[in-house]
Amino acid sequence: MMILSSAKLNVSIQSKLRESYPEITFTFCKGMEEAQSYLDQAEVLITYGEDLNADLVEKATHLKWIMVLSAGMDEMPFHTIQAKGIMVTNVRGIHAIPMAEYAISMILQVSRNAKELHKHEQQHTWGRKVPMREITGGTMTVVGTGAIGQEVARLSKAFQMKTIGVSRSGKDQPHFDQMLTTDHLSEAVEAADFIVSVLPSTKETRHLYTYEHFEIMPSHAIFLNMGRGDAVQSDVLLKALNNHEIGHAVLDVFEQEPLPPDHPFWEHDKVTVTPHLSGISPEYVPRAIHIFVQNLAKYVSGDNDLINRINLNRGY
Amino acid sequence: MMILSSAKLNVSIQSKLRESYPEITFTFCKGMEEAQSYLDQAEVLITYGEDLNADLVEKATHLKWIMVLSAGMDEMPFHTIQAKGIMVTNVRGIHAIPMAEYAISMILQVSRNAKELHKHEQQHTWGRKVPMREITGGTMTVVGTGAIGQEVARLSKAFQMKTIGVSRSGKDQPHFDQMLTTDHLSEAVEAADFIVSVLPSTKETRHLYTYEHFEIMPSHAIFLNMGRGDAVQSDVLLKALNNHEIGHAVLDVFEQEPLPPDHPFWEHDKVTVTPHLSGISPEYVPRAIHIFVQNLAKYVSGDNDLINRINLNRGY
Repeated sequence: MMILSSAKLNVSIQSKLRESYPEITFTFCKGMEEAQSYLDQAEVLITYGEDLNADLVEKATHLKWIMVLSAGMDEMPFHTIQAKGIMVTNVRGIHAIPMAEYAISMILQVSRNAKELHKHEQQHTWGRKVPMREITGGTMTVVGTGAIGQEVARLSKAFQMKTIGVSRSGKDQPHFDQMLTTDHLSEAVEAADFIVSVLPSTKETRHLYTYEHFEIMPSHAIFLNMGRGDAVQSDVLLKALNNHEIGHAVLDVFEQEPLPPDHPFWEHDKVTVTPHLSGISPEYVPRAIHIFVQNLAKYVSGDNDLINRINLNRGY
Repeated sequence: MMILSSAKLNVSIQSKLRESYPEITFTFCKGMEEAQSYLDQAEVLITYGEDLNADLVEKATHLKWIMVLSAGMDEMPFHTIQAKGIMVTNVRGIHAIPMAEYAISMILQVSRNAKELHKHEQQHTWGRKVPMREITGGTMTVVGTGAIGQEVARLSKAFQMKTIGVSRSGKDQPHFDQMLTTDHLSEAVEAADFIVSVLPSTKETRHLYTYEHFEIMPSHAIFLNMGRGDAVQSDVLLKALNNHEIGHAVLDVFEQEPLPPDHPFWEHDKVTVTPHLSGISPEYVPRAIHIFVQNLAKYVSGDNDLINRINLNRGY
């Protein structure tokens, strides 16, 4: 059996895989250009998912399983893959830890006035009168309650918060004290000290947050968006901030990315801008390979009940 | 019965106490100067603890209980208090929540390179290549395992860390996976990604951390001191930082406070200075009064088993 990787993997990962499965032929390539010529021999393909198309899948006549080392799979030729009876797995949930750390880190920074303290440090000023808030005991509303939202809620519970989740179905999810459906968004944000938005970009989530939602939030509320930038229009959010409807916005995602250098968000004293980095982690590849290794053990034993197996009809 | 307060308390707290106990005479003063003339009538005294001396305690002929709205009681005339059979309670443990939030917030900030990101924001730079680390899954060594250290450990466990506690006795404490005595400090810091020091200032803790301790820490380790500044000499720490023995120092306490404006810590790129604020919280007085209210309910019912009752022989 040949396992082909079009995803560039470091040498220590390559060695470990070869040591664990000496009977398997591993062919590690630096990209699809190099991997292409091995496609017709591969039974398993490891890919970041953006380098496949229907033609390549057609060429891969022995392919049985595609392991996508990514969570998004917008570029995948699912139709052809399904027609050929190939299984697909991905690394769904892999962003939960870094993104939840990001969320907690940022609401702590804003609540504890880190920017002001940093300014004092730069000025060598011993200033103990900087206003600060605790996050402990507050109310955390998470909009989008998948793996990432649940991890935010789990950490929020460690800080003794009340957690409210908002999802399409409103059905119970771990670590949420209360769940509401999206049409109760106003109710969910009215009570919140912190609103963390982890929505994907869909027709339903585009411009979901209206001015009225910000109006109903407490004036000290921190709104954090690490889902997709189109969940709220920049102008709506700016107006809400300028009218003191909320206390602060932490933004990792934007309608236009990179955020243009002349965008008012950069200079706004109630906005913290980060460059779409909440999901970045040095643990990404090790975690992705860990999922692959667990799945490979199942696969070689003939168990096709793989972790994160994609339903090819739905595409997720 | 008269309850006298030499601690300035806000009007809403005053009203609530009066409403809860209409039969008690509450005399709220702005300080001891004003409170002095009522001392001989008071059965209970509420104080921040720094305004008492033996003479005043002698004057307080009906005094049975002193509620100290503070954790430190260095100024208290314990000898006279004990001779007169007066009970003392304090608000021990009240700093646990804000100080644990401080610790987690700061190690997140340093690990996620918040200062660099802030600089990019000020320059309107979309920079996604800033090196960042997760705190999840690391090893947290807490030196000093009282209420504050335990709360740091509890939150660290929520971030899936391994927790090592260091105390004089080395006896088991909640939320620590491993406990070591102080003479095993080297072993405790050798394994640590994060070292949080919450030691009080005593003969044993003065200059506890030597150059050798920093030498043995991992070169990426973050050392955070929020106990007392004399646990480590500035020069020793500076040498360790300059020799790349550790990754970063987060310092809230110093040998000399305020930290002099020309001290090299302010400008050092591996040091974050905060002005002894880890214990500051807007929740301080509400929490202190909450302890008092619980104790008052016991006291009026004749139960002298008060929360945080001080052993006057030991002074804590």
